Amino acid sequence: MPKAVVLLSGGLDSTVCLAWAKAHGYEPYALSIDYGQRHRIELDRAAHIARDLLAVEHRTIAIDLRSLGGSSLTSSSDVPKDRTQAEMAIGISSTYVPARNTMLLSAALAYAETIGAFDLVFGANALDHAGYPDCRPGFFAAFTILADTATAAGDEGRGRFRIHTPLIDKTKADIVRLGIELGVDLSQTTSCYDPDREGRACARCDACILRRAGFAEAETPDPTTYRNLPGSGADR
Amino acid sequence: MPKAVVLLSGGLDSTVCLAWAKAHGYEPYALSIDYGQRHRIELDRAAHIARDLLAVEHRTIAIDLRSLGGSSLTSSSDVPKDRTQAEMAIGISSTYVPARNTMLLSAALAYAETIGAFDLVFGANALDHAGYPDCRPGFFAAFTILADTATAAGDEGRGRFRIHTPLIDKTKADIVRLGIELGVDLSQTTSCYDPDREGRACARCDACILRRAGFAEAETPDPTTYRNLPGSGADR
Repeated sequence: MPKAVVLLSGGLDSTVCLAWAKAHGYEPYALSIDYGQRHRIELDRAAHIARDLLAVEHRTIAIDLRSLGGSSLTSSSDVPKDRTQAEMAIGISSTYVPARNTMLLSAALAYAETIGAFDLVFGANALDHAGYPDCRPGFFAAFTILADTATAAGDEGRGRFRIHTPLIDKTKADIVRLGIELGVDLSQTTSCYDPDREGRACARCDACILRRAGFAEAETPDPTTYRNLPGSGADR
Repeated sequence: MPKAVVLLSGGLDSTVCLAWAKAHGYEPYALSIDYGQRHRIELDRAAHIARDLLAVEHRTIAIDLRSLGGSSLTSSSDVPKDRTQAEMAIGISSTYVPARNTMLLSAALAYAETIGAFDLVFGANALDHAGYPDCRPGFFAAFTILADTATAAGDEGRGRFRIHTPLIDKTKADIVRLGIELGVDLSQTTSCYDPDREGRACARCDACILRRAGFAEAETPDPTTYRNLPGSGADR
């Protein structure tokens, strides 16, 4: 079986990607990035999910971008709340982390070269992230060309890199349905940009709003525990 | 004056690049990467050099690749010693860090986007690093294309990124001469892959061998203090 590096944040999208990689015949190697995000609960969830979904291994690389500032996800400015999807779609969001996906894919590329993998799986989504240039197909095409020139593995012709973005043109509802189809326990995943210490989601940031809308549109109960929605969660 | 991000390791090449950026009319913003290298003295030297050469600011980002292993520069395997330049030129060196320059440029790109710069200056050298695919012109061309698609700044057409590699086809002797021409205090720079606690260079790793040969060929006294060469250094 070919090896694949799966970028695993612990969120809905990346978890479905890990299940997708297994379903498509890859041996998944999960990689999480500790980039100084405010929502550190993600890293714990990612470790659990990697075990549950039988990843061959799970590594975490620290990339500390906090000294750069520039995003509400890594600095102390407030995460935007209660925005409509139309508002999210206008311009670049304050939750945009400069060159974030370039850093994430670079780390995945380094890991891939270390283990002899040529397949990278990344849960980018062009619909939910219209304001993020590094979630679009053109970005991934440019990174694929880069990967072959950037590595000893590519340079010596041992293989050619491929970046799989199985969710790129899916709606959140499609992703929820795909996750259920692949047997993923979606209650383990976390999407919130601003969870509390117990990992309960805020229900009001962009990520929560998109997630809730996705479950609603997929006509599937949302197993997430939201701190601002009494009675939410799998245990209701 | 246009801003430029200069990747500053504290070595000879990156220090000459910082001086080059100033001489070419850029406001230099220095960026060092703490990637878990064994030779941490570099980071201290980089801070000194950034002050000496009047960089507008100097930031350090931590990118911890040690969990990946894969290189003698970040793991405990031995740094190769006493190799000839012909031996260094054959194949990929064990000091090769997988996808390292992709990571470094990604970090520089993130910093550039944060401060509104479009110029990146990087002291890559194709001659000294024949075994490193990510030191070649094709790699930098691919990264430039990527940068414009990867960022909000590029996407919104606020500018186009340029990667300057002023040392790409220079010999080490050329770099020594350029540094002196630009008034750089080369004794502040450190190249060694395996310095001791006092920062004294080993004289025998690939970096030391290339550096020593460069000063010799440039017919310039080498100000480096080598622990294995009694009487070496600026204070002899």
